Amino acid sequence: MSWSEVPDLPPPGNGEVTVDIVATAVNRADLLQRQGFYPPPRGATEIIGMECSGRVAALGPGVDGFALGDEVCALLVGGGYATQVNVPAAQLLPVPSGVDLIHAAGLPEVACTVHSTVFERAALADGEVFLVHGGASGIGTFAIQAVRALRPSAVVATTAGSAEKLVRCRELGAHITVAYRDEDFVARVRAETGGHGVDVILDNMGASYLERNVDLLATEGRLVVIGLQGGTKGTLNLGALLPKRASVHALSLRARPDAQKARIVAGVREEFWPEVAAGRIRPVIDRVLPITEVAMAHRVLEESGHVGKVVMTVGG
Amino acid sequence: MSWSEVPDLPPPGNGEVTVDIVATAVNRADLLQRQGFYPPPRGATEIIGMECSGRVAALGPGVDGFALGDEVCALLVGGGYATQVNVPAAQLLPVPSGVDLIHAAGLPEVACTVHSTVFERAALADGEVFLVHGGASGIGTFAIQAVRALRPSAVVATTAGSAEKLVRCRELGAHITVAYRDEDFVARVRAETGGHGVDVILDNMGASYLERNVDLLATEGRLVVIGLQGGTKGTLNLGALLPKRASVHALSLRARPDAQKARIVAGVREEFWPEVAAGRIRPVIDRVLPITEVAMAHRVLEESGHVGKVVMTVGG
Repeated sequence: MSWSEVPDLPPPGNGEVTVDIVATAVNRADLLQRQGFYPPPRGATEIIGMECSGRVAALGPGVDGFALGDEVCALLVGGGYATQVNVPAAQLLPVPSGVDLIHAAGLPEVACTVHSTVFERAALADGEVFLVHGGASGIGTFAIQAVRALRPSAVVATTAGSAEKLVRCRELGAHITVAYRDEDFVARVRAETGGHGVDVILDNMGASYLERNVDLLATEGRLVVIGLQGGTKGTLNLGALLPKRASVHALSLRARPDAQKARIVAGVREEFWPEVAAGRIRPVIDRVLPITEVAMAHRVLEESGHVGKVVMTVGG
Repeated sequence: MSWSEVPDLPPPGNGEVTVDIVATAVNRADLLQRQGFYPPPRGATEIIGMECSGRVAALGPGVDGFALGDEVCALLVGGGYATQVNVPAAQLLPVPSGVDLIHAAGLPEVACTVHSTVFERAALADGEVFLVHGGASGIGTFAIQAVRALRPSAVVATTAGSAEKLVRCRELGAHITVAYRDEDFVARVRAETGGHGVDVILDNMGASYLERNVDLLATEGRLVVIGLQGGTKGTLNLGALLPKRASVHALSLRARPDAQKARIVAGVREEFWPEVAAGRIRPVIDRVLPITEVAMAHRVLEESGHVGKVVMTVGG
């Protein structure tokens, strides 16, 4: 990756704003895109970067609710590793009160992912059991807090790879923490839930966890796969799924049409932002690096030693 | 299987009625239960038979809306291959006007299955593409008609094993009929839908069709598996599911709690029964046999030459 001059952006189109970017954040999909495995949707910029924070620098026709200079963060289809980006205003969020503008760069992807999966697709109900794999990841740290804040009677379980990460997950509100390297997460979570199992699983592993996740689902449980770090083709035991009336969903955020992204962003603003402002959901930032150290920023994710998001500052 | 004297039923319990059974119908699950593969839920009768028609013979305490002598059909957890059964009143349906009392025995299972899967779980929307495998089966013949009646802009595709069955499926309203023995249903349905694929698939095969069904799903498509005639463990390509934001569901009706069955039956009565009364959904009955010929009735399903339901008359 290299940081270089590119032509200026066109002016913002209908319903778009131009954002002067202050910070962006690293997503696992960025690593795949860098390696050529996750091309951007047709027509989108080739520049990596699916979220940013910054200030509104120009308003396209028909934009309501934002003004020049507003501090915002945004869900992007790409182009976050840059000094400016054009984005539909419906994908902008105000920076929640009490959150640093730089740290806000790490919020849009995790907030929109957790809202669209756990709260929309899986419709986690209060009192249900929720399991997120990789509880120390950006998604994990946000999901644990969001479920605790919005579903106060839910039981939150998580897996992580080190004792230190499990301690952080507990501090964030996880009730059940499983060291997946040392323990069978199916047996542990089943035992800790009195045999009930899990109503909603948010999974980033895909194939390698599929059989175990299905085994652990409770009656009418929903497995939501958002990452394929453990491969794409797995064995699905329909004979286990059917008597439980359970389901397996696989989703990503980036390929959604703009209208869906607008709906998700509106849901995040309505349901999550008050919790962020109240301090019940805090952005968990592993570190902030200048974007000139993007190679190191990607290496941090590859080595999986981090807790929360890796944010990169842009420009001066 | 043998037809023999058993002790009289106890009087109907709270919210239950006793039905004098006139007819029952054969379900594929009956064949599995006969072979010992599908034991009834704990506490349920060992007598086979998941639906019946007949007349209300006794009312337990707290039953509203039914009177002695009413002609009804019912969704049963078991006990349909008998002269009398006790059933929660919430699982009773009036015999729709224009339907023969004997033929009505073939309605509850297919109506409740199609409602709870296609209309509830998968929430088929008008204008979407629907595929039911085994279009000449009891489920298939009902699903084709129900979708045409209630989702008039939906496109209905089906597979079947013979040219004669495909003609019957077309008569019932299927737009796209695929002879699965001779044609690749994925290629045919994809071509006939202009590349769109299928929004909702109702599948009775399970493992053997899993990869092809997932391949054929459209963006945000829902595969609903209700039978495992092609095995239980299949390969799930999450790499195909994820960019489509698609889902795989597996469901059965019998194990559901009574409250869910009551809700499903109420939905059937409200949405399907007016269409049955209007003749837009007709029970498709392959043949009617006396219950003393139950062995032949089961053989008909095993040989898969039938179109629609096999009904058996009970008593004199």
